[in-house]
Amino acid sequence: MIKFINNTADITKELLEGYVMAYADQVKLAAENIVVRANPKSDDKVAVITLGGSGHEPALSGFVGDGMLDCSVVGDVFAAPGAQRLFQALQLFKRDAGILLVVLNHSGDLMSANMACKLASKAGIKVKILETHDDISAGLDASTDDRRGLAGCIPVYKVVGAAAEEGKSLEEIYEIGEHMNSQIATLAVAMKSCTHPQNGAVITDLEEGVMEIGMGQHGEGGGGQEKLISADDTAEKMISLLMRKLTPKSGAKAMLIMNGVGGSTHMELNIVFRRAAQVLAEAGVELVFGKITELLTVQEQSGFQMILGLLEDDHIDYLKNHMSNAPYWTTVGK
Amino acid sequence: MIKFINNTADITKELLEGYVMAYADQVKLAAENIVVRANPKSDDKVAVITLGGSGHEPALSGFVGDGMLDCSVVGDVFAAPGAQRLFQALQLFKRDAGILLVVLNHSGDLMSANMACKLASKAGIKVKILETHDDISAGLDASTDDRRGLAGCIPVYKVVGAAAEEGKSLEEIYEIGEHMNSQIATLAVAMKSCTHPQNGAVITDLEEGVMEIGMGQHGEGGGGQEKLISADDTAEKMISLLMRKLTPKSGAKAMLIMNGVGGSTHMELNIVFRRAAQVLAEAGVELVFGKITELLTVQEQSGFQMILGLLEDDHIDYLKNHMSNAPYWTTVGK
Repeated sequence: MIKFINNTADITKELLEGYVMAYADQVKLAAENIVVRANPKSDDKVAVITLGGSGHEPALSGFVGDGMLDCSVVGDVFAAPGAQRLFQALQLFKRDAGILLVVLNHSGDLMSANMACKLASKAGIKVKILETHDDISAGLDASTDDRRGLAGCIPVYKVVGAAAEEGKSLEEIYEIGEHMNSQIATLAVAMKSCTHPQNGAVITDLEEGVMEIGMGQHGEGGGGQEKLISADDTAEKMISLLMRKLTPKSGAKAMLIMNGVGGSTHMELNIVFRRAAQVLAEAGVELVFGKITELLTVQEQSGFQMILGLLEDDHIDYLKNHMSNAPYWTTVGK
Repeated sequence: MIKFINNTADITKELLEGYVMAYADQVKLAAENIVVRANPKSDDKVAVITLGGSGHEPALSGFVGDGMLDCSVVGDVFAAPGAQRLFQALQLFKRDAGILLVVLNHSGDLMSANMACKLASKAGIKVKILETHDDISAGLDASTDDRRGLAGCIPVYKVVGAAAEEGKSLEEIYEIGEHMNSQIATLAVAMKSCTHPQNGAVITDLEEGVMEIGMGQHGEGGGGQEKLISADDTAEKMISLLMRKLTPKSGAKAMLIMNGVGGSTHMELNIVFRRAAQVLAEAGVELVFGKITELLTVQEQSGFQMILGLLEDDHIDYLKNHMSNAPYWTTVGK
């Protein structure tokens, strides 16, 4: 294993400890693997919680902070946290206003979420699940159950977090989030696979000079492998598929995010973004929000997730004009 | 070349175009390779400008924005911009309040800066150079001339940018920046070298399982190669050297930044940060500002730069309480 780690069994514990030491003004550990804000929101407002495996840093705990998530429940590397741990977090945030639980569509995460919600219901805790499923690699007509949750959840965190901070009700926040969610599509491409940090296993075989469009969160395959093409050709191919899914009309307002998954340079992400944004402009789609960074990584895998979203005015307002102070998503606001 | 690029000659132009499209509310191109704020600062205030080669994204243009840099002058991949291009930028920002030009100590950048300042002087443009030289790999007693500028310049941009926004004079801003600069030390480690995106050349030979402490900005050697050790041992070795350079007293207030240079995961950066922060705490040093992210990258090189700074109260105030709205350094402020 060629990584800066210690005992592989301690990876998750140690990375979370390092994280909250670096950003002590913003986040802290409420319990093992439960990251919460350093300055909690008042409990007359809806709490927003998410869950997922580690090894994808800065996701998901990087988005805990004022105006965004209240809590992230962390599993081991590439593994969902257990239902019991999630139930523990739901108990911490029990409140009359309720809890919005954002779950990326992966079987392990969903299973834990469903079980924890049953326990919560018996304990009188009000929780509503918002499930994200932005991946379109299963096909343009695939059912939402077959569509995995990729990094498209992260701008949703921002929007529902801002609506919660504003004092909207659980039902209103769910509607805003679900509306946004239904208009987000993501496609991933990988060029070089990653190794699992605990066992050194290579997730997918990709020869040098080959790329695969449609990879999952852990580098598991989806689309077909093909010879690497230029940045512009890759951008055109991917943004075209995303636009076929969302069918934006001329005049539509869009968000375009390039999420680097680890091994590709910011240089490359910028170059791909450029051509994808040009294609949107050629179709008369207005780019109102852009971002190029590493939000949800897959260890040292090369490649990226391209996220397209069509936004309503309220989404734009929550994204751009409302303050957020999470370590990896900071918005000054207006 | 296994990267998402187009014609290698267009890399810098295209990545800057993509960048300003993504962050159009914050930055724009004033001319070829000259990135400026979308909302310029009033010209009764000092302008803060920097320069450097591309291929290190998000540096340096990622730090242009309200409360931080006014302008970044960009060279080709790993190459300083020419004096003429820099002079063009200085002309754009000519003002009675003057210009602070922050230059990382690299021979090409310094040569361009000195030549452009001569031209500026003849043209009646008031410019003062602040040179950064935070790398300690040349040895603890090396002269500042022999110490390269690494990513330690970036928190300096934040502090001098905030002081300029507040209306401080050129002389005052220089003093604040130089004081901070003199109390920053950086050490880099690499584990896997990168390739030059235009010619595919590998910068340094590093066998698998070997690391080198003391790498320069482009992966050029500095220290000696040694067998990879654990995250904790690496952290202890590096923070100890940084502390020997800065000799913090118990009660000192410190900034600790882990700058990932490309290929190492955020997971690893968090784990190394954890142990380094523990060593600071054991010495009675108070961690008042932390950051773990990719600020200045070296393509897909594995490794990181560890940046330690001892801060005065005014530095802390400018870092934490003053708003900045650059795409890659956003501070809500108070």
